[in-house]
Amino acid sequence: MDSSTTLAMAMKEGYLCYALSFDYGQRHARELEAAARVARTLGATGHLVVSVDMRGIGGSALTDDINVPSGGTPEGEIPVTYVPARNTIFLSLALGWAEVLGAEDIFIGANAVDYSGYPDCRPEYLKAFEDMANLATKASVQGEMKFRVRAPLLKMTKAEIIRTGRKLGLDYDLTLSCYNPSEDGTPCGVCDSCIIRERGFKEADG
Amino acid sequence: MDSSTTLAMAMKEGYLCYALSFDYGQRHARELEAAARVARTLGATGHLVVSVDMRGIGGSALTDDINVPSGGTPEGEIPVTYVPARNTIFLSLALGWAEVLGAEDIFIGANAVDYSGYPDCRPEYLKAFEDMANLATKASVQGEMKFRVRAPLLKMTKAEIIRTGRKLGLDYDLTLSCYNPSEDGTPCGVCDSCIIRERGFKEADG
Repeated sequence: MDSSTTLAMAMKEGYLCYALSFDYGQRHARELEAAARVARTLGATGHLVVSVDMRGIGGSALTDDINVPSGGTPEGEIPVTYVPARNTIFLSLALGWAEVLGAEDIFIGANAVDYSGYPDCRPEYLKAFEDMANLATKASVQGEMKFRVRAPLLKMTKAEIIRTGRKLGLDYDLTLSCYNPSEDGTPCGVCDSCIIRERGFKEADG
Repeated sequence: MDSSTTLAMAMKEGYLCYALSFDYGQRHARELEAAARVARTLGATGHLVVSVDMRGIGGSALTDDINVPSGGTPEGEIPVTYVPARNTIFLSLALGWAEVLGAEDIFIGANAVDYSGYPDCRPEYLKAFEDMANLATKASVQGEMKFRVRAPLLKMTKAEIIRTGRKLGLDYDLTLSCYNPSEDGTPCGVCDSCIIRERGFKEADG
């Protein structure tokens, strides 16, 4: 939902968009199929899937064989679905591709409201990444490119995100949020991600 | 050479070391075999190889099917073996593993003297990464860990690196620097990396 809405917003701003997905040992491939569908439908110029095996690193319900809990995470706690350094790893790979493409703007669907527990969804983190990125690459150091990390959803609620996407014509049936879908892609309805999604739709419609 | 010497130095400082290598679509697997050999010989507590497919990203002689030039890179130019955002990607994966292990010190064999063309081997870059890392992770944000990026070779010449490693008992015959070794692991002798290595040994012995 978040990545798809972010893509729709970037397209609306007139960018030629290159969508980047990660096969990182998450528990199902349905998410990648959904990503390809969304990128195609929204008219992204390219879509690349980078494989990065984060299972050896461990430390998360999304990459280890531990269970994704149902029923939500208590307020103020970081969920077990936290993946160590995930956004840093994803943004780093995006940075490498951005340099090759000559793309200065890196969009990420980070959202600090519903996922306030994730440290790598906070504005101060994203700013620090941007500063580092501009010291990291040949193109930026030679003054040819200046990278910006754009997180347009950062301060939006899930309901606001959904309303924004709908206005831009995004069909959320194409997207998948569930951490534990069945074989045919049906969401479980009980994981954190399903709960946050359902609450978002209720609020957007209410 | 650089990674191996860095490991030897960290071991000497008394750290329990977890060695991390990357299978990133570089042109040969000999480098990974050499890394495993070195980690074992020096007594690293663990050795993890993370696969990350950087071929889709492109932009480098090391990951694309373009030729690695022989004869060296002109002074002041960034070599074609530059891989976009490589150290950022590697350090990000190291950061994720470090958080899981509870390891605060991330050692990297970056060297600013012989590879002064690489932007991600400069002290200001490494400092920016460290700042970002301490905003990126659950353990650092909760005050349980403070990450340090340590690059003990940063201002050493290749000759100084070799002398340091030898003093620590490192057998450089175990290591491999060549970008283009033959099937049996024999170095080509003409790529940038071979030239820098050979010059280093001459200086160290001279």
